[in-house]
Amino acid sequence: MENFTYHTPTKYVFGRGAEEKAGEEALAAGMTDVLLCYGGGSAIRSGVLGRVAHALDSAGVNYVEFGGIQPNPTDDKVYEGIEICRRERLTALIAVGGGSVIDTAKAIAAGVPYEGDFWDFFTGRKVEKALPVGVVLTIPAAGSEGSGNAVITKLDGLHKISIRTDYALRPKFALMNPELTFTLPPYQTASGIADMMAHIMERYFSPSEGVEITDRVAEGVLKAIIEEAPKVMARPDDYDARANIMWSGTLAHNGICGTGRKEDWTSHAMEHEISAVYGVTHGAGLAVVFPAWMTYMADRQPAKIAQFARRVFGVENHDDRSAAMEGIMMLRAFYGSIGLPVTFAELGVASPDIDLLVKKLHENKGERIGGYRTLTAEDTAEIYRLML
Amino acid sequence: MENFTYHTPTKYVFGRGAEEKAGEEALAAGMTDVLLCYGGGSAIRSGVLGRVAHALDSAGVNYVEFGGIQPNPTDDKVYEGIEICRRERLTALIAVGGGSVIDTAKAIAAGVPYEGDFWDFFTGRKVEKALPVGVVLTIPAAGSEGSGNAVITKLDGLHKISIRTDYALRPKFALMNPELTFTLPPYQTASGIADMMAHIMERYFSPSEGVEITDRVAEGVLKAIIEEAPKVMARPDDYDARANIMWSGTLAHNGICGTGRKEDWTSHAMEHEISAVYGVTHGAGLAVVFPAWMTYMADRQPAKIAQFARRVFGVENHDDRSAAMEGIMMLRAFYGSIGLPVTFAELGVASPDIDLLVKKLHENKGERIGGYRTLTAEDTAEIYRLML
Repeated sequence: MENFTYHTPTKYVFGRGAEEKAGEEALAAGMTDVLLCYGGGSAIRSGVLGRVAHALDSAGVNYVEFGGIQPNPTDDKVYEGIEICRRERLTALIAVGGGSVIDTAKAIAAGVPYEGDFWDFFTGRKVEKALPVGVVLTIPAAGSEGSGNAVITKLDGLHKISIRTDYALRPKFALMNPELTFTLPPYQTASGIADMMAHIMERYFSPSEGVEITDRVAEGVLKAIIEEAPKVMARPDDYDARANIMWSGTLAHNGICGTGRKEDWTSHAMEHEISAVYGVTHGAGLAVVFPAWMTYMADRQPAKIAQFARRVFGVENHDDRSAAMEGIMMLRAFYGSIGLPVTFAELGVASPDIDLLVKKLHENKGERIGGYRTLTAEDTAEIYRLML
Repeated sequence: MENFTYHTPTKYVFGRGAEEKAGEEALAAGMTDVLLCYGGGSAIRSGVLGRVAHALDSAGVNYVEFGGIQPNPTDDKVYEGIEICRRERLTALIAVGGGSVIDTAKAIAAGVPYEGDFWDFFTGRKVEKALPVGVVLTIPAAGSEGSGNAVITKLDGLHKISIRTDYALRPKFALMNPELTFTLPPYQTASGIADMMAHIMERYFSPSEGVEITDRVAEGVLKAIIEEAPKVMARPDDYDARANIMWSGTLAHNGICGTGRKEDWTSHAMEHEISAVYGVTHGAGLAVVFPAWMTYMADRQPAKIAQFARRVFGVENHDDRSAAMEGIMMLRAFYGSIGLPVTFAELGVASPDIDLLVKKLHENKGERIGGYRTLTAEDTAEIYRLML
């Protein structure tokens, strides 16, 4: 087991009506002047934005609305938000939405107190100081409500890059009402499920040994997701199933599945290039990337893939490579069963430009990437080809 | 799933040499004048107290040593500590030890800023304000390093009572070096293992439905403990095994195994009476109580006991009661295999005064206790008899 620091001070308020506590939680976190961030019209139509605004009004919290944040969020909205915060002297942010809205809020939070270009944080500069961020979660997927990370795409060159902080960008609070997820379209629900599973697997496929406790927790969260996913697909208003999926999405990415080990994150990096170039849904892209990455590994370093197959999917095969391949088949079948693509073609990318993807991947991430096993451009090209 | 709030701001610094960070973590937590709490001579002999003191010295943190805290800690030490803090104007505490030292530090932390008798907090008063507490953990068992709880025995009448807070008494930081646990005596190691398993099971045996994610996490932690326990018993200096057990002890009790459901805590309450009257080791007492409680439940409400048997111990029996009984047998065998008692006699209590235990239990906890199933004095007497 590797040495680690685990520090997750986010206060999760989970359950029916959670969003109505936005006012009191904002005050408890010392938020008085807030940029209220959201995405498209669904936050308005569903009424959640109104309820949050009402809660802030009742608590006497001043706020400025900032909508129109798109999926795969881009740097232009971050610059715009920083500008508004400075102009209106806003000192906190509340994000109402999913990962795109939260990540934009985090990037703004880091950018406001920084004199330089916020993009510096996405190219290596450490975030020392940031405005406090609160979250009202409406899409369980990215896990950004409990993480210190954010992913933003630079429009100029379509560089989709993430920042990771231990602490500075963790939300102060996350209000999580599973009822808000009842109306998510099936494809978005399923993509969110693939995203949270990937967050666990990026941590699970680790070169570190002797981390049984973290393996077991990770396997437990994966099993819960796999058991609950068919229920939310079949009955979108199944409260308990939605609640299980929502909380799983947080545990998948708040670090509890990664304590004491090196992580991988190759599949995310590979998917980010696909999203940036072809605009696909991140989670759906991951459903295509992950089985391909695992297939590549099954031939070279199958032990952990086999453990995954046996413990998560109950595969009984004693040969590591065969068990791994069987587990990958079951994972692909699972993705298929909830309506997700598992090939480029199913993802709607008929003729992917693999050379471009590989080029951009290694431009952004360096010549060699990966934790479970180090990969060069030749290796990642082969993995992209396994998605055809 | 029930609504819940989950807020665990403790910063865990885990790994070799963690205790050497006491100075910098104290400063980061704003601690300048510290009551440095510890138990017997082992903290001195092992050198850990010296290393912590050196780290505090190097960081310029002022401290007063406060030793002699006993297992099953009592109120007299709390009064003494409160007195010293007030006299010496100490505004923070660092506990070097296990649950007894940490719980005493927490009770002092609550008592110092309170004008009345600190015991009020153990009889219902809410802790609103407390001095900050830091921890250097040397015994993985009680989970107090990550919890908001404390258990203290009142010498007058031997009332062993716990306080539970959501937040106020959670340690600011916990420094966790598995190497510090290499020298624990086998019986203490094993008792700690039973204690942490009990913390999970008190949460697992819940009347709440639809909490698959929390069940799966709890089962995962239990499985990790059961797998790693024989390794630490066989080779006390197996770093990875000790690390797995140590981190499991934190996850067992920091709330992650309890999100979204009502909890039980009958077995702890029943054991606290045994400890208070007969002075036995808490964890060893739990190894006696829990299988008896489960046996009582197997006849009346077996479903969750059967799920435990199947998922944690791999029992394949399809009948709930039979599966439950098989699981209980395997749990008792596991406890026996690591040298723990499973009856009163093995615990060293040849002729327990069950009437007294039942009387004190319900005096302290009320006429009806329990979450998984409500129990009267008649029921708890039967459970105590199942330990004979």
